[in-house]
Amino acid sequence: MTALGNALAFLHWDQATLMPSGAAGTRALESAALEGLAHEMLTATETGDLLEAAEAEARTLDADPREVALVQANLREVRRQYTRATILDRDLVEALAVAASTCETAWRAAREERSFAVVREPFETLLARVRESAGAQASVLGCSPWEALLDAFEPGATEAGIDRVFSELEGFLPDFISEVIEQRTGNPDPGLPEGPFPEAIQERLAHDLMERLGFDFRHGRLDRTIHPFCGGTPRDVRIATRYNEADFTSGLFGVLHETGHALYEQGLPEALVFQPVGQSRSMSIHESQSLLYEMQLGHSRAFLAAFLPGWREAFGGSGPAWEPETFGRALNAVRRSFIRVEADEVTYPVHVLVRTRLERAMIAGDLRPADLPGAWNDDMERLLGIRPSNDLEGCLQDIHWYDGLWGYFPTYTLGAMTAAQVFDAALKGDPAIGDGLDRGDFRPLLAWLRTAIHEKGSSLSVEELLREATGRPLDPAVFRAHLRSRYLDGDR
Amino acid sequence: MTALGNALAFLHWDQATLMPSGAAGTRALESAALEGLAHEMLTATETGDLLEAAEAEARTLDADPREVALVQANLREVRRQYTRATILDRDLVEALAVAASTCETAWRAAREERSFAVVREPFETLLARVRESAGAQASVLGCSPWEALLDAFEPGATEAGIDRVFSELEGFLPDFISEVIEQRTGNPDPGLPEGPFPEAIQERLAHDLMERLGFDFRHGRLDRTIHPFCGGTPRDVRIATRYNEADFTSGLFGVLHETGHALYEQGLPEALVFQPVGQSRSMSIHESQSLLYEMQLGHSRAFLAAFLPGWREAFGGSGPAWEPETFGRALNAVRRSFIRVEADEVTYPVHVLVRTRLERAMIAGDLRPADLPGAWNDDMERLLGIRPSNDLEGCLQDIHWYDGLWGYFPTYTLGAMTAAQVFDAALKGDPAIGDGLDRGDFRPLLAWLRTAIHEKGSSLSVEELLREATGRPLDPAVFRAHLRSRYLDGDR
Repeated sequence: MTALGNALAFLHWDQATLMPSGAAGTRALESAALEGLAHEMLTATETGDLLEAAEAEARTLDADPREVALVQANLREVRRQYTRATILDRDLVEALAVAASTCETAWRAAREERSFAVVREPFETLLARVRESAGAQASVLGCSPWEALLDAFEPGATEAGIDRVFSELEGFLPDFISEVIEQRTGNPDPGLPEGPFPEAIQERLAHDLMERLGFDFRHGRLDRTIHPFCGGTPRDVRIATRYNEADFTSGLFGVLHETGHALYEQGLPEALVFQPVGQSRSMSIHESQSLLYEMQLGHSRAFLAAFLPGWREAFGGSGPAWEPETFGRALNAVRRSFIRVEADEVTYPVHVLVRTRLERAMIAGDLRPADLPGAWNDDMERLLGIRPSNDLEGCLQDIHWYDGLWGYFPTYTLGAMTAAQVFDAALKGDPAIGDGLDRGDFRPLLAWLRTAIHEKGSSLSVEELLREATGRPLDPAVFRAHLRSRYLDGDR
Repeated sequence: MTALGNALAFLHWDQATLMPSGAAGTRALESAALEGLAHEMLTATETGDLLEAAEAEARTLDADPREVALVQANLREVRRQYTRATILDRDLVEALAVAASTCETAWRAAREERSFAVVREPFETLLARVRESAGAQASVLGCSPWEALLDAFEPGATEAGIDRVFSELEGFLPDFISEVIEQRTGNPDPGLPEGPFPEAIQERLAHDLMERLGFDFRHGRLDRTIHPFCGGTPRDVRIATRYNEADFTSGLFGVLHETGHALYEQGLPEALVFQPVGQSRSMSIHESQSLLYEMQLGHSRAFLAAFLPGWREAFGGSGPAWEPETFGRALNAVRRSFIRVEADEVTYPVHVLVRTRLERAMIAGDLRPADLPGAWNDDMERLLGIRPSNDLEGCLQDIHWYDGLWGYFPTYTLGAMTAAQVFDAALKGDPAIGDGLDRGDFRPLLAWLRTAIHEKGSSLSVEELLREATGRPLDPAVFRAHLRSRYLDGDR
C-alpha cells in the first residue's frame, strides 16, 4: 500500500510539474485506478482478519520493549486507517465525490459573480453529504461529527482541545492586532525592494537556500509549478514552486516553507519508510515544521542577516530597502486584510478562527448555508474590524469547503502555535542552536528537530510528541509571547 | 492492470531522467511492489474464471461484426497474457530473477577482464534456468522452447518463419557487404562535420524535428537521459535522449529513431487505450516504425535535403562536409566492425544472425557456454570476415543474455525488414507520400502509417497486419532491394 501511495505521489508530482496537457484525462483514470486499488487492499476482509490476529499476537509479544512499542504503534496506525476506510460505504463515498465535484464547479462560477447565492444549492447538497459522512464516522469513532472530520488530518484532536487553545487566541488577538497597528501609526511599514528579479536567479538562490538549511538533493528535487507544494516520498522529496519577477520574497519564502515540510519528510526514520509508523504524524506537526522554517526562523533577524547580503548581491540590488532592519520591517508588516492566503503572521489566525467557528456551526446544524455570507462578514468585523464588501472577499475565497475539505482549517493555526513552541524549546534546549543561527549555521537546529520530531515518525501521538519535545502540551502562551516579542517589542 | 502498467512506465521514466540518485533503493521496491500487484491480478483464479466466462459469451455474441471482432481480439490478447503469466510458478520466476541478477553483475566484471571465463559459471546457471523456463512454456504453448522465448516479444513467430527470412539474409549479405566495400575502395567515405555542437542547439533541433514529423507535444515530452529510450504511455509519450557535442548525428538520429516509436504509440487507437487490443502489436512492428523513420526515411536524400540546411545554419557550419551528397555518404558509410550498436544498416543484420544462431543452439543444448566465445568468433569470421581479438569485442558486448533476455535479438532485424517493406508499400500505395517527402512534408507518410499500422493496435496478428498493410507476408527481397538501391546503385 505504501508503494501504491508513493506511485500516486509521483503521478501527482508529474501532473503538477511536467505532464503535457493532453494527458490529463488518462492520468486522472490512472490515479483513480491506483487509489481504488489501495482502498480495496485496505478494506479487504482479509486485511481485517490479519489485523485482528496481529493485534492479538502483539498483546503477548515477548521481545525488546522498544520493538514491542514499535509493533503496537504500527498496529495502532493500521487499525486507525482500517477503521476510517471501512466506515463509509461505497455509495456515500461516491455521492460525496459527486457532490464535491459539482459544488467545486459551481464555486468557480460563484467567484465570477462574487456571489455565494450562485453556489448555495450545490453547497447545501454537499454539506448534507458531509454531515451524513461525519455522523457515520462519529458513531463508530465515538466522537462528535466535527471531531470525526478533524481526526482525518489531526489524529486525536478534540473539540475541547481546540476550544482551549482557540479561545485563548480569540481572547487576545483582536486587541493585540490593534496595539501593533497603533504602535506603527506614523511610522508606516516600508516597501520591499523593487524588481524585476529574474526567475533563473531566484531559482539558483532557492536551491542554495535549500542546501544551506540541510535539504539533501540526493533525496529530492526542486522544480517549477503553478501552485507550490512539497510532494514525492520521504526518500525522494519533490518541492515545486513558482517565481514572481516583481517580488522575490514570494518565491524564496515559499520555498523556505516547503523546505520545512521537506526536511521533516527527509528526516522520517529511514528503516520504517514503508511502515505506517514511519510516516509523518499529522497536519499540524507537518505545518509546524514548514512554519518553523518560514516564519519562526525565516522572518527573524538572524536569518535575514545570513541571507539578505547574498540575495542583494545576486540581484544587484541597492538602496535602503535592502538594509536588514528595513527589509525585516517590510517583511513583517501587519495589515488587516480580507484574504487568508495574503495575511501576515499576526492576522492569519483570525482568518482560521472565523472558519473554524462557522464550520463547526454548519456541521452541528446551527448555521444554515443561506446565512453563511452574513455570519462570515459579522465574524470578520467582530474579530478583525473589517467587513468584506462582497463574497469573493468573504466566504468564497477558499476552495476547501466547496471541494469537500472540512475539518482542515484549524491545522494551519495549530501548526503556527506548534512551530512557536517547538522553536522555543529548541533554542532553550541547546544553546548551540541559537549560536549557530547567529553564525548562519543551521545544522544544530536541524539536528535537534531530527531527534525531537522527525525521527519519531508516527510512533507517538501528537500530544505525546509535543510533550516529549517541548515538555508540555500545546500552549498558546508561547505563540503569544513570540508575537509580542517580534511585533511589539521588536526583539526578533 | 493498464493503469498499474502506466504508473510503472512513469516511475521508470522518472528514474531514467530526473530521479535523485539516493532514491534508487526505494524506487526499486516501489516498482517491484506494483509489478507484483499486476502479476497477482493477472494470475488470480478469478481472472481465469472471468476470462473463461467471457470467452464462452463471445462465441455466441450477437452484435455488430466489427464489435464482435474487437471483443474477440481483446479476449485473445488477455488469454495470451494470462496463459504466459500462469505457466511459471513463483519459485522458478524468482530463481530466474536471482540467476539473472547474479549473472549480470558477473558480466560487468567479465567485461573489465575482457574474458568470458569470468562469467561462465553464473552464465551456465542462468542458461539452465532459462532452458527450464522455456521448456515449461513450450509444453503449454505447444511450440519449441526457443519459440516460447521469442513469442514473449513477437507473438506468433516460429522457428520456421525466422529460418525462412534469416537464411535468405545469410545467403546474400556476406557477398553484398564485400561488393559495397569494394565498390567504395579508392573513394573512401568522407567524414561527418566536425563540432563542437552545443547541446542546447541540438535539443532545440531535436524538438523541431519531432514536431515536423508529427509528434504531438500535447501528448508527450522530450527530456535527457543516459540511455535513450521512448517510454511513458500512448497518451503521454516520453522520449529521452543524450547529446554528443562532438557528433550531432548520434543525438538527432537517436531522437528520430525514438520518434518513430513515439508516433506509433501516439497513433494507437485512443478509445482502446486501456484495453489489450489497443496496445502496440509486437517488438518487430515497433522497431519497424523506429527504423522506418531513422533509416528508411532519415538516411534518405529527401530527408537530408529537408533538414540539413537548417542544421548547418543552426550550428553555423560550413565546408564540403555539409554538402548533402557528402553528408549522405558519410552517414551511410559501411564498415565491418565488431560492435552491434555501432554497426551500419548493411552489417547490422549480420550481428543479429550470429546471435540468433548461437542463442538457438544454446537453448537447444547444442552449444555449451564454454564453447560460446569460440563459436561467436568463428561465426563473425565466417559471415563478416573479421575475428574479435577478445571477448569484449565478441560475446561479452551485449547485456541481453546475461540479464536473462533471450529470444529478443531477432526482433531488431525483423524490424529492419518490416520497415523496408512498410515504407515501400507506403510509397507505392500513395504517390502523395513521395511528393510530400520531396517537399519536406511528412504528413502524408504519417497519415498512411496511422491507418495502415498505428490504428490497428493489436487487433490483428503480426502476419495479418503486415499482409493488410503491404499485401504480403514478410519478404526479405524488399529489404535486399532497398540495400542494393541505397548502397550499390546510389539511388536513395
